Amino acid sequence: MTVQTFDFDLATAVRPNGERFSATIDPDWTVGNRPNGGYLLALAARAALMATGQPHPLAVSGHFVAPPSAGPAELDARLLRSGRSVSSARVTLVQQAQPCLEALVSAGRLDPDAQPDWEAASGPPELAPVQECVRGRSELPGGVRVGILDHLDLRLDPATAGWFKGKPAGKLEMRGWVRFNDGRPPDPLGLLQAVDALPPASFELGIMRWAPTVEMSVYVRGLPADGWLRCAVRGKLLQGGWFDEEAEVWDEGGRLVAQGRQLAGARLGRGRG
Amino acid sequence: MTVQTFDFDLATAVRPNGERFSATIDPDWTVGNRPNGGYLLALAARAALMATGQPHPLAVSGHFVAPPSAGPAELDARLLRSGRSVSSARVTLVQQAQPCLEALVSAGRLDPDAQPDWEAASGPPELAPVQECVRGRSELPGGVRVGILDHLDLRLDPATAGWFKGKPAGKLEMRGWVRFNDGRPPDPLGLLQAVDALPPASFELGIMRWAPTVEMSVYVRGLPADGWLRCAVRGKLLQGGWFDEEAEVWDEGGRLVAQGRQLAGARLGRGRG
Repeated sequence: MTVQTFDFDLATAVRPNGERFSATIDPDWTVGNRPNGGYLLALAARAALMATGQPHPLAVSGHFVAPPSAGPAELDARLLRSGRSVSSARVTLVQQAQPCLEALVSAGRLDPDAQPDWEAASGPPELAPVQECVRGRSELPGGVRVGILDHLDLRLDPATAGWFKGKPAGKLEMRGWVRFNDGRPPDPLGLLQAVDALPPASFELGIMRWAPTVEMSVYVRGLPADGWLRCAVRGKLLQGGWFDEEAEVWDEGGRLVAQGRQLAGARLGRGRG
Repeated sequence: MTVQTFDFDLATAVRPNGERFSATIDPDWTVGNRPNGGYLLALAARAALMATGQPHPLAVSGHFVAPPSAGPAELDARLLRSGRSVSSARVTLVQQAQPCLEALVSAGRLDPDAQPDWEAASGPPELAPVQECVRGRSELPGGVRVGILDHLDLRLDPATAGWFKGKPAGKLEMRGWVRFNDGRPPDPLGLLQAVDALPPASFELGIMRWAPTVEMSVYVRGLPADGWLRCAVRGKLLQGGWFDEEAEVWDEGGRLVAQGRQLAGARLGRGRG
């Protein structure tokens, strides 16, 4: 019998260790030298699922208080409430006694056969076909390494890839197709990653710098069908050094499966690279 | 010298009490007999501001794990990180040793003179003029008491008040003007209340029941001008018993000052009242 183990599950593995969980922050699920926020949220959610005994994260909120480094980390997971349909836990990701990420997770069970009782008429975001999109590369022109793109197959809509050629569109928008490189099917934990897989929308304002996330929250709305995930991010306002990003992830069956939101830092005219 | 004390500040007062804070859940900032979620989030944020020493909440995320009752409560506030521009704290609202609300707050200082570096072209939501709107009443037809409407002046856009006459519009949408009844000027803590001041958008799907919030998060984007707040809420999907609400709050100067989002529970066809 062959057990297939996918990169993402190895990189987000958590092991019970007394009252806590141990994990290893993977050096390769990174942007620059910083672990990706969606990756960290998935790691915290995995600990929360073990603490709650529920199968699926429904709502996950994280505040990123200090960027962790690659290497060992501890996850302190505390059950806040155990309920029949929803259980909640708090998870603190700690490195060298410093909290790096504080996450709240409400978890339950998503019905694979659930159908929308009501949905907005707007439907899935428009995206160029996969074959017309720009493939994300783990080596960016400025020498920045985007390690997660060795694990995620990302195809950016040319309409929001102007930044890549020095011609940003001047809007907080980013759209693309995402799937795991190694054929891992998408699932609720994978959606936490997909929600944060696109480059910062601030790139399309010409701000080619790391955009540190203060808060990110994700609602998982359904179990995704196998295949490509259709991701779209929009922001409303850049002001005082902060911008918002609202993300939607749709599956190949045309179902809204996750909604993300984050508040991140960026400043106009603070150089590039 | 007269010190003017407003209802909202009295109802959200927190007093240091050893390593914790004490507060009283006000019996009058309620919908039915349940304290309003925005009110509770403001209470938690006030404790977080004291713990961090920062003046303004920037991002607040709360998971509502059990509805608290009116009466005494304790707030356990722990500083997660103290930074120059952003400090973060975790606040647990506890009643009878049971966590009721777990909140994460990242706080800093909003610049009163900040101007948008970039904003989406969509602009503020369309709303009928205040005088053409439906005034929110604290006594609903079914006998449900909405205590917060003795403190908040709410004017619902007739386009999203169909539910009030038994003719819901069939969309997850709610729009209205909000201000404090007693003339308290809006501020960042008040925005946490305003974001959750409208009736659940699920009313406009004909679901006339309490919609328990699992998660609510708010980004405060600016210091609001004095006057009415323009609030608009939209949802994308009701499925499996859950719906989302995305809220925007704009001030009288036409500035986006807060963005809220929540995941709440509702089921079609489960009776009314």
